[in-house]
Amino acid sequence: MASTIKVNLPQQSYDIAIAPGGLDRLGESMAGLKLGKKVLLVSNPTVFQHYGQRAIASLQTAGFEVVSCILPDGENYKTLESLQKIYDVAVENRLERSSTMVALGGGVIGDMTGFAAATWLRGINFVQVPTTLLAMVDAAIGGKTGVNHPQGKNLIGAFHQPGLVLIDPEVLQTLPVREFRAGMAEVIKYGVIWDAQLFAELEASQHLDAMGDMKSELIDSILVRSCQAKADVVSKDEKEAGLRAILNYGHTIGHAVESLTGYTQVLHGEAVAIGMVAAGHIAVELGMWTQQETERQNALIEKAGLPTKLPVGLDIEATIEALQIDKKVKAGKVRFVLPTQIGVVKVTDQVPSDTIRQVLRGM
Amino acid sequence: MASTIKVNLPQQSYDIAIAPGGLDRLGESMAGLKLGKKVLLVSNPTVFQHYGQRAIASLQTAGFEVVSCILPDGENYKTLESLQKIYDVAVENRLERSSTMVALGGGVIGDMTGFAAATWLRGINFVQVPTTLLAMVDAAIGGKTGVNHPQGKNLIGAFHQPGLVLIDPEVLQTLPVREFRAGMAEVIKYGVIWDAQLFAELEASQHLDAMGDMKSELIDSILVRSCQAKADVVSKDEKEAGLRAILNYGHTIGHAVESLTGYTQVLHGEAVAIGMVAAGHIAVELGMWTQQETERQNALIEKAGLPTKLPVGLDIEATIEALQIDKKVKAGKVRFVLPTQIGVVKVTDQVPSDTIRQVLRGM
Ligand SMILES: NC(=O)c1ccc[n+]([C@@H]2O[C@H](COP(=O)([O-])OP(=O)(O)OC[C@H]3O[C@@H](n4cnc5c(N)ncnc54)[C@H](O)[C@@H]3O)[C@@H](O)[C@H]2O)c1
Ligand SMILES: NC(=O)c1ccc[n+]([C@@H]2O[C@H](COP(=O)([O-])OP(=O)(O)OC[C@H]3O[C@@H](n4cnc5c(N)ncnc54)[C@H](O)[C@@H]3O)[C@@H](O)[C@H]2O)c1
Repeated sequence: MASTIKVNLPQQSYDIAIAPGGLDRLGESMAGLKLGKKVLLVSNPTVFQHYGQRAIASLQTAGFEVVSCILPDGENYKTLESLQKIYDVAVENRLERSSTMVALGGGVIGDMTGFAAATWLRGINFVQVPTTLLAMVDAAIGGKTGVNHPQGKNLIGAFHQPGLVLIDPEVLQTLPVREFRAGMAEVIKYGVIWDAQLFAELEASQHLDAMGDMKSELIDSILVRSCQAKADVVSKDEKEAGLRAILNYGHTIGHAVESLTGYTQVLHGEAVAIGMVAAGHIAVELGMWTQQETERQNALIEKAGLPTKLPVGLDIEATIEALQIDKKVKAGKVRFVLPTQIGVVKVTDQVPSDTIRQVLRGM
Repeated sequence: MASTIKVNLPQQSYDIAIAPGGLDRLGESMAGLKLGKKVLLVSNPTVFQHYGQRAIASLQTAGFEVVSCILPDGENYKTLESLQKIYDVAVENRLERSSTMVALGGGVIGDMTGFAAATWLRGINFVQVPTTLLAMVDAAIGGKTGVNHPQGKNLIGAFHQPGLVLIDPEVLQTLPVREFRAGMAEVIKYGVIWDAQLFAELEASQHLDAMGDMKSELIDSILVRSCQAKADVVSKDEKEAGLRAILNYGHTIGHAVESLTGYTQVLHGEAVAIGMVAAGHIAVELGMWTQQETERQNALIEKAGLPTKLPVGLDIEATIEALQIDKKVKAGKVRFVLPTQIGVVKVTDQVPSDTIRQVLRGM
């Protein structure tokens, strides 16, 4: 079943098109957008071997001239050096203001391609074809683009909205199960912060930990409701002035865990799962949330095959310290997103260190 | 005499403050802008030796914590590598969303610093302290920022508006005379495309080729009227959708001349001067402009010590070819800005190659 979600922004609106088999209609879907003929497709070898030729064929059938830039796979390559490679292909092929960069891949490829499109000739067209669950429900939507600095993630970037996000759920069939689960963490997040109905649907499913075991209607619903949640929040706060902060639910402790484990041992989604468990406990400690609802959240996280405990050996004092250097710190106060009921959260910087310490010790 | 010009944009407005001795009040001028404490000052050794300590002292007196990044002097260093150096200093000193990058230098430093500010944490505050005439009347205003690709100028960039442009005309005293004249080309441009009164004031002055020989009221007027012209055009067309094209008067042929001479022999302003002479002749050929007015324009260009003839040995066919690969080409048609009377221009892509050839042969 195909669905379309509109992202309405002050300057620009665009569609998130969710359609099984949509990859083969990529060119067609772009044909209505008034784009120039030239397309630069950016991908990595893992994704390109599965889907590259189909994407290119579809673009060519629709009359686009396609060149591609295949970057090495992995967060380690989300760098200015990779960006330079995209620019090199752009200059060789004389990409113009009317040309389009298409990202075919997960969040890493999407973030880099978006930043290249934001900065080539001060901004050209950009289309997202996310191929991980995480990129479909999160990274591809909202216009945040960028690369890492050797000293920190996503420090260099720009806001640049895509002209289209095309989601073909069928490509998830080749996604490694661990990556699927990592994406599911963000889906559960939307249930807790925004959409109690999504939360209920996730509760009703017997399985959440592997795509093959899940009903296709549930996959549909997960994609549509998650994208809608992100689109709603982003439309209300494009440049992260306020509301958008709630998307960081689970990310405060999550980022500290990622950074202390060197970004290799724990996937981002796994760290967010741990962070949501911690945030739930903190909310209960502060009397903001019920024990019963936090347990329902944690049960979903477990059903999705995600971790609910701190990585073995994690230094708790170092974790508390790491919170201080997060981007979300304002005037020395750590900002937490905490649930008050399923579907509703509050942002607060009034969490005593002792509460954090006690909760982490208990995990 | 101090003047302030407001640049009004849909999202944001800012001041261009023109004040002799203003450099020593930089910190004070920034104090009202609600900026964080941290400032990263970017400059080059040439400019920094003259003005760096005064800028820093003024910032510190106003309570800012200042770090600096001194990049090598020259267009050759307007690269992603230099940008990386700015990012390195930013990360070392933990620049935050509320922090500010200050560009102290000519257009090269301004463009790079602006791009770094546009992309650090997806955009932080930015203040321009232009120190060349060209940067004062042109590069520092309008929010175009960027760096060069080895294969082409300004191919990588972003729109990012400064929070303040502070112009201290006194710093022009150390500017090499050839650079002063190059800036004067853009001043004459504003007279031809926008401000007949400015044109008349330039005509009334005995000298235009060296700051020391010019009345300080004329310098004032040149700065105020040129900045006002650019601010007017930019306010009406922030993202270069239409009107802003008129700022490219003299730049069509100018860019071709720069590119064919390898960007070393001829300064940008000198190339623009040659381009304005060519555009004037073309306009006369097409019956759009009078011979008499084009001669008045050319007299100003000569009085400013700028070239009015093509560089010796320039290949005319190669020049015509180079027009085709300019950024201003749309669907294969070369776009020209042509005067119809002093203060008024028209944009057209209806210039026959033969007319261009004939005009260039005559120069
Ligand atoms: N821009 C945003 O708003 C935003 C939001 C969240 C995350 N992010 C960023 O996203 C990145 C993480 O994204 P991710 O989780 O998609 O990681 P990823 O892009 O590294 O993809 C994970 C792995 O799956 C592989 N893969 C992707 N699609 C596949 C498919 N269909 N079949 C088989 N293998 C496939 C990839 O090659 C990679 O090895 C991080 O860099 C993060 O900063 C950005
Ligand atoms: N962003 C825009 O809208 C825009 C518009 C026009 C030009 N530009 C860019 O601006 C650049 C050219 O700028 P520019 O002409 O200022 O060149 P520049 O920045 O290279 O400065 C010219 C020379 O003068 C020196 N200098 C600067 N100020 C001085 C001072 N007060 N005393 C002594 N020496 C001084 C510099 O160190 C340099 O050697 C180009 O890269 C061009 O692309 C940008």
